Amino acid sequence: MTHTLVLLRHGESDWNAKNLFTGWVDVALTEKGEAEAVRGGEQMREADLLPDVVHTSLQRRAINTAGLALDAADRHWIPVRRSWRLNERHYGALQGKDKKQTLEQYGEEQFMLWRRSFDVPPPPLEDDSEFSQVGDPRYADLGDEMPRTECLKDVIARMLPYWESGIVPDLRDGKTVLVAAHGNSLRAIVKHLDQISDEDIAGLNIPTGMPLVYRLDGDLRPTVPGGEYLDPEAAAAAAAAVANQGR
Amino acid sequence: MTHTLVLLRHGESDWNAKNLFTGWVDVALTEKGEAEAVRGGEQMREADLLPDVVHTSLQRRAINTAGLALDAADRHWIPVRRSWRLNERHYGALQGKDKKQTLEQYGEEQFMLWRRSFDVPPPPLEDDSEFSQVGDPRYADLGDEMPRTECLKDVIARMLPYWESGIVPDLRDGKTVLVAAHGNSLRAIVKHLDQISDEDIAGLNIPTGMPLVYRLDGDLRPTVPGGEYLDPEAAAAAAAAVANQGR
Repeated sequence: MTHTLVLLRHGESDWNAKNLFTGWVDVALTEKGEAEAVRGGEQMREADLLPDVVHTSLQRRAINTAGLALDAADRHWIPVRRSWRLNERHYGALQGKDKKQTLEQYGEEQFMLWRRSFDVPPPPLEDDSEFSQVGDPRYADLGDEMPRTECLKDVIARMLPYWESGIVPDLRDGKTVLVAAHGNSLRAIVKHLDQISDEDIAGLNIPTGMPLVYRLDGDLRPTVPGGEYLDPEAAAAAAAAVANQGR
Repeated sequence: MTHTLVLLRHGESDWNAKNLFTGWVDVALTEKGEAEAVRGGEQMREADLLPDVVHTSLQRRAINTAGLALDAADRHWIPVRRSWRLNERHYGALQGKDKKQTLEQYGEEQFMLWRRSFDVPPPPLEDDSEFSQVGDPRYADLGDEMPRTECLKDVIARMLPYWESGIVPDLRDGKTVLVAAHGNSLRAIVKHLDQISDEDIAGLNIPTGMPLVYRLDGDLRPTVPGGEYLDPEAAAAAAAAVANQGR
């Protein structure tokens, strides 16, 4: 028996469109991002890939991507589970900053270190910053776990407990599981599933709005490494574009 | 300690706009209905009435009303629970029929009996009707409980177990609870809360898109009978309009 997991990265947000580092800032989807979500749901419906349960982050762009995609797939009525552990990487003091300006100001090396290094987080965001999430009621229960900045290693560390306690039980129940989340929380899942090294994960980009399907064996190992996009050509083109952000 | 319950009836749907009996047919909101949902959420935000959990039916018009209203109230991230027991009344063989034509064909007396009598359901819908929900995967677990028609008495009978097992525990936990649902499933809740007689419930109409707030005491009795609308004048005008549907 195989288990079916579908990963869906949210479509374009207001701050993607403005080329700003977003992280935990709770921006909305653009109209283009909404259309991407609908198209992702249509792809699922056309492929007869019908989620039985959806997991999202606590962020609007992932929540609304899930809602729009499931509505388009006629699966709007399935159970919903949410966790901050599926949130985007916290971008620390970079939150709210322009990506191109940051590149020019700090140079290619520092920029790529913050964006893609495995274990070097940006400087922490001050709690009194307008872009801080400290005091946000949705994170009131986090206590010491509330991040002020994160590297991908940190994202993996806070994501994995939810993978084990929230997502794996649904997969073991035989459910087709949709995870609607973010570039880095989904990279964390993919790294775990495909056992990608700390070095190689830097080169992995997940395109927006394109369902990525993993069929997992009894040990929850991918039967096809890297999974399969429902529209592989469009996904390859989009992933290349993500890699060039900030240029 | 009082408990806070907010009832929200979905805004205008495609079939409301076309004046068709809808029941369990899963139609979408119109643009007007989406705007009503957003306005309902804005009212909640302005009143600082912030839901901690939302309960919806399995129907798109209530699910999307909840999503749009919570997004507007900045509470899109709260836990979501859904149940078929919050669905609209099943309108039996009337589903898909024009309300005005039905009134002309069957006359005022029969029309009002089907619309407003407490315990006379319309004729059952045939399972092979295009408007039947038999075979819909979201209802696959219902078995003998799958309705083919319902009167309000039937709606109350299938709603109350969810009130007790799904909604009351959240109220007892001190949560502000939003129920985004339908004209008749919400009338069922109101009848239960306000102990309205089988006769008097016929005259009660709940307007669309207007949050109705109940503060409940320790016995879950309303501290203000009938609850309070955040915008009482608009609600009174809208309820009068609902009562005249089909004229």
